[in-house]
Amino acid sequence: MEKHILVTNDDGVMAPGLFALVKEMRQLGKVSVLAPDHNWSGSGHVKTLDRPMRVTEVRLLDGSIAYACDGAPSDCVALATLGYFKEPIDLVVSGINVGANLGHDVTYSGTVTAAMEAGIAGVPGIAVSLDVPQGFQNEIDFGPAACAARLIVQRVFENGLPPEILLNINVPFLPEDQIQGFRLARQGLRVYHSRLDERVDPRGRPYYWIGGEAPTGVAERGTDIGALAKGFISVTPLQLDLTAYHVMTNLSSWELPGQSNKKFFSLPAFTVSHA
Amino acid sequence: MEKHILVTNDDGVMAPGLFALVKEMRQLGKVSVLAPDHNWSGSGHVKTLDRPMRVTEVRLLDGSIAYACDGAPSDCVALATLGYFKEPIDLVVSGINVGANLGHDVTYSGTVTAAMEAGIAGVPGIAVSLDVPQGFQNEIDFGPAACAARLIVQRVFENGLPPEILLNINVPFLPEDQIQGFRLARQGLRVYHSRLDERVDPRGRPYYWIGGEAPTGVAERGTDIGALAKGFISVTPLQLDLTAYHVMTNLSSWELPGQSNKKFFSLPAFTVSHA
Repeated sequence: MEKHILVTNDDGVMAPGLFALVKEMRQLGKVSVLAPDHNWSGSGHVKTLDRPMRVTEVRLLDGSIAYACDGAPSDCVALATLGYFKEPIDLVVSGINVGANLGHDVTYSGTVTAAMEAGIAGVPGIAVSLDVPQGFQNEIDFGPAACAARLIVQRVFENGLPPEILLNINVPFLPEDQIQGFRLARQGLRVYHSRLDERVDPRGRPYYWIGGEAPTGVAERGTDIGALAKGFISVTPLQLDLTAYHVMTNLSSWELPGQSNKKFFSLPAFTVSHA
Repeated sequence: MEKHILVTNDDGVMAPGLFALVKEMRQLGKVSVLAPDHNWSGSGHVKTLDRPMRVTEVRLLDGSIAYACDGAPSDCVALATLGYFKEPIDLVVSGINVGANLGHDVTYSGTVTAAMEAGIAGVPGIAVSLDVPQGFQNEIDFGPAACAARLIVQRVFENGLPPEILLNINVPFLPEDQIQGFRLARQGLRVYHSRLDERVDPRGRPYYWIGGEAPTGVAERGTDIGALAKGFISVTPLQLDLTAYHVMTNLSSWELPGQSNKKFFSLPAFTVSHA
């Protein structure tokens, strides 16, 4: 049976990166598009419960129908997996983001958290980002990244993804013939150079930018950042379980005070429950 | 030297849960408050880069000074750790949230992502949530949760937290003498009951709520959800590295097409790089 693929993004439904992805995905199944009506970069994992959302029909560059939503990328995935299209979604692809999502970027990223939302809904989710340098002004060739996305989605249709797992794909910003291939990679160490930029408005009141240079990273072998630095497409499986199992033992040695006048202080010390 | 503790939350700076936390934290060091000026529940991990933020001086219930920001909880942590208070922050506590943050809630939660932001900035971060039932209308006693937060923060000051680790604390909504103690717990399985609620506005246009009952969870032993169900305070260490290491081998067996007319398709198959 034909697969039903949801394409979304965090740059907004009219972004060329989304259209490039849509065209490739059509080779693999039926494509529905539900994406934000404006840019949500840096928005994180949003669940809009305190207000209703609007969905508007729009036309992509080739005249095909897509849907724009005033919610976040993860809201678009929620609406689609809850039945907006009246047909089940088999897979969610989010992107192609302008700019890599590496290391600690993943929890901030609307692109990646859309794929997380898919994972929570029990649907395979794939985030695709192109490592365009910050401030790049010329036309962007999304072709290699879209093609990479198609190859990955094919593999997911063939092999499935384990539950609670999503894929974070980052493509180096290189001509196709300079891309070295795919590399499985762990999440690397992003280095942020943010600084507080305090300014004063025309009425004498302060305001604050998060300023500073674009983030860099430690190009360590085995990491997403290292893979991109060598010209590889990084493929990073991410999990929804954030438990730091390796520090459980460490924490179990903590002792909470057992003596006090207040009942609360006489609570038993930490008891480790791994079972 | 006296510790400098940042208190923030996602319910807004005037929320009583924040004030309860502030009072307990004052027993442990110097407390600064920088928190959102409105409720950001379900907002996720936000990094506000496309606009500046305002910070306003406000007064808490006891007349003490606090700061309200029009950014998200994680933005408040970013501003503080980047130097808003001119003094380094030693620890960030976020809460006390009205409602538990269990299982998959963690990436949606403004309370938890504030603690994540602390972790990214290299500062210990602790999220504290009270399992108040959805729709509860009476006055909430934050005392036991605030006291639990103090006990945990004391332990963190004594023992430290490993880098890239934050703590997610959930307190059962019980009188103090019915709380069974603390329990180290992994992230459990949250069960969401969301459904798409399509309505039509007075002008005949559709709009969409994410509706449905409040989430429940699988009260499995060893999990945060299981701990709360038994009357324990759950203490869950979370990590910023989301890499699903256990599926790396699985994915390395995928083979990408090696033959094609297009140069791109002749990329080498996945090569696993663990080093």
